[in-house]
Amino acid sequence: AAHNILLLPGDGIGPEVMGEVKRILGFLNDKGVLSVEIDEDLVGGSAYDVHGVAISDAAVAKAHKADAVLLGAVGGPKWDGVAYEHRPEAGLLRLRKDLELFANLRPAICYPALADASALKRELVDGLDLMIVRELTGGVYFGEPKEIVDLANGQKRAVDTQVYETYEIERIAKVAFELARVRSGRVTSAEKRNVMKSGLLWNQVVTATHAQGYEDVKLDHMLADALGMQLVRAPKQFDVIVTDNLFGDILSDVASMLTGSLGMLPSASLGAEDPETGKRKALYEPVHGSAPDIAGKGVANPLAMIASLAMALKYSLGKPDLADTLDRAIAGVLESGVRTGDIYVEGATRVGTSEMGAAVLSKLEAL
Amino acid sequence: AAHNILLLPGDGIGPEVMGEVKRILGFLNDKGVLSVEIDEDLVGGSAYDVHGVAISDAAVAKAHKADAVLLGAVGGPKWDGVAYEHRPEAGLLRLRKDLELFANLRPAICYPALADASALKRELVDGLDLMIVRELTGGVYFGEPKEIVDLANGQKRAVDTQVYETYEIERIAKVAFELARVRSGRVTSAEKRNVMKSGLLWNQVVTATHAQGYEDVKLDHMLADALGMQLVRAPKQFDVIVTDNLFGDILSDVASMLTGSLGMLPSASLGAEDPETGKRKALYEPVHGSAPDIAGKGVANPLAMIASLAMALKYSLGKPDLADTLDRAIAGVLESGVRTGDIYVEGATRVGTSEMGAAVLSKLEAL
Ligand SMILES: CC(C)[C@H](C(=O)O)[C@@H](O)C(=O)O
Ligand SMILES: CC(C)[C@H](C(=O)O)[C@@H](O)C(=O)O
Repeated sequence: AAHNILLLPGDGIGPEVMGEVKRILGFLNDKGVLSVEIDEDLVGGSAYDVHGVAISDAAVAKAHKADAVLLGAVGGPKWDGVAYEHRPEAGLLRLRKDLELFANLRPAICYPALADASALKRELVDGLDLMIVRELTGGVYFGEPKEIVDLANGQKRAVDTQVYETYEIERIAKVAFELARVRSGRVTSAEKRNVMKSGLLWNQVVTATHAQGYEDVKLDHMLADALGMQLVRAPKQFDVIVTDNLFGDILSDVASMLTGSLGMLPSASLGAEDPETGKRKALYEPVHGSAPDIAGKGVANPLAMIASLAMALKYSLGKPDLADTLDRAIAGVLESGVRTGDIYVEGATRVGTSEMGAAVLSKLEAL
Repeated sequence: AAHNILLLPGDGIGPEVMGEVKRILGFLNDKGVLSVEIDEDLVGGSAYDVHGVAISDAAVAKAHKADAVLLGAVGGPKWDGVAYEHRPEAGLLRLRKDLELFANLRPAICYPALADASALKRELVDGLDLMIVRELTGGVYFGEPKEIVDLANGQKRAVDTQVYETYEIERIAKVAFELARVRSGRVTSAEKRNVMKSGLLWNQVVTATHAQGYEDVKLDHMLADALGMQLVRAPKQFDVIVTDNLFGDILSDVASMLTGSLGMLPSASLGAEDPETGKRKALYEPVHGSAPDIAGKGVANPLAMIASLAMALKYSLGKPDLADTLDRAIAGVLESGVRTGDIYVEGATRVGTSEMGAAVLSKLEAL
């Protein structure tokens, strides 16, 4: 049976980079190596402009039914004045929460061809391959109260609430341990147990989960601030890093920058496995944002979006080999010296979004 | 009248690095360039071992009266099992809160002699000089509720609360703007307004404060995750960064690592100016931790502790020129190739804690 894919291009450069994914999906369909049915809808500011909300109920319903959702990017200065509950990000956050996509996988891989583009010295990042496992449906992103109240003295008080329950920490820890097993077998858990009660519980539950049948994985704990430092000092010491929603947001951005270009990195957001079908809800998106400054110019790097498709092939569409092939096509294009502006170096061939997509396609054909 | 200084060496390498500060203070006293009365007390695990609390009321009372408090470091695995409210960090947090030290100044300076020790390429950090202004008495560190509760189903729920009121944001923004005026005149404010109500209020209050007479300073806003990325990509784009307690914790650690060695960086935590005396309560401490792995070995780098004394001379003891002289002595020692283990490079002269202190002293004598 054909797989069902929902495309949500979103805002800014989202539609452009998604365009290249469509071409690749079309190619794979035509070749007969993949059978997909594709639907498309709005999210973020572009949904707000049409529906007055950052994602329509109809689009959320489609996402529930899809085997995989691919999302481009949301947000931009155009919607700066929009009410908090309708801001573009609300569409993405609602998808994560409604689909219960609690496990956000953010690989930070340094492509050999790009090692020199890193801000870090080459020897520190060459061959870097780490995976940040970020909790995505809990913590300060969703805890209540979350409000701004007017005080009697004319001032305001803003409140956000970080909440974690045992089961939320347990299930994300299991994802990290299981990933570590098919990687180098090491997990580093990060929190601020020295100042946060949620950090204390996080630490205890990760340790307890480890003792329940994951002793083959090596587990370390590190304070989140120290981990931020170590990421910059010696990133190759890490394999899998597991952390909460907010720390994961910042630390994964720092990690992504180590690799030379944010424009290169995909992410997967996964729900729990259905015990009957073995399927899990999933959303795939690049780590980069909507880049309003270059939107519409045809210069955005589509490789993170294409790499997100590769993650979908691996985790949702039952095609791990095809995923590898696509990843190799990306690496091959980079080795051949083809570059969008964000990863351009002297002597390379500078291309735009669609030429980059075409380059991946032609590598794919050859593989 | 003599200035009153309280020394709180604390745990781990704290007493060793504080020892070098004592020698320098003694030298300055003897020379007659500074008149100080020095008292000393316990904080952290060492206070817990003696008093059963991470800081005694008597020590807090002394801190209230002192012109400046110098603190070494707190914490260590020895106290891992201690109840949450008595853990070593609680002593430091109580000091910050009781003295209302809301403004934490964390300079990230790249000493030319150490630029090659940075994980980043030399050209990205050479000459780096940025200042992180971290809010220190609010946010998730102190908000209530902060608790772990047992649920009916046998699970636990942990809660931390991030709270900010208008006045807290306003006063830290002013510190940032005023610092920017005597630096390069630029402030970048970081929050997560796209997911946190406190981020939204932060953004609004910083903008409003800017409009109240600080228009000569250039103000930018950046999401905290994006700022983490930009710190690694191109740190020299920043001058003053102002952010909340938790983001400041992580981002200042990332920033400190850019400079090549955490062992080098001081910090100042300041209270409000007393409108009558013009004085402000203040605590000075290195950014590095208690480093239990090397404690007691005489190898710790005392330069961050000595640089913290320089900040005290500048901000609390009315001796900005002497502060500059001390900073120049530190830079001079580094240029002469004297190095503790953490900043050792081939060809340098490897020294221990007290030799490093002596090297600074002899530079001081020569200046
Ligand atoms: C767009 C924003 C709401 C989002 C987040 O903070 O999670 C983004 O930064 C991310 O990391 O996916
Ligand atoms: C020791 C700890 C409580 C402290 C903090 O989190 O503020 C430290 O990391 C710091 O940055 O001063």
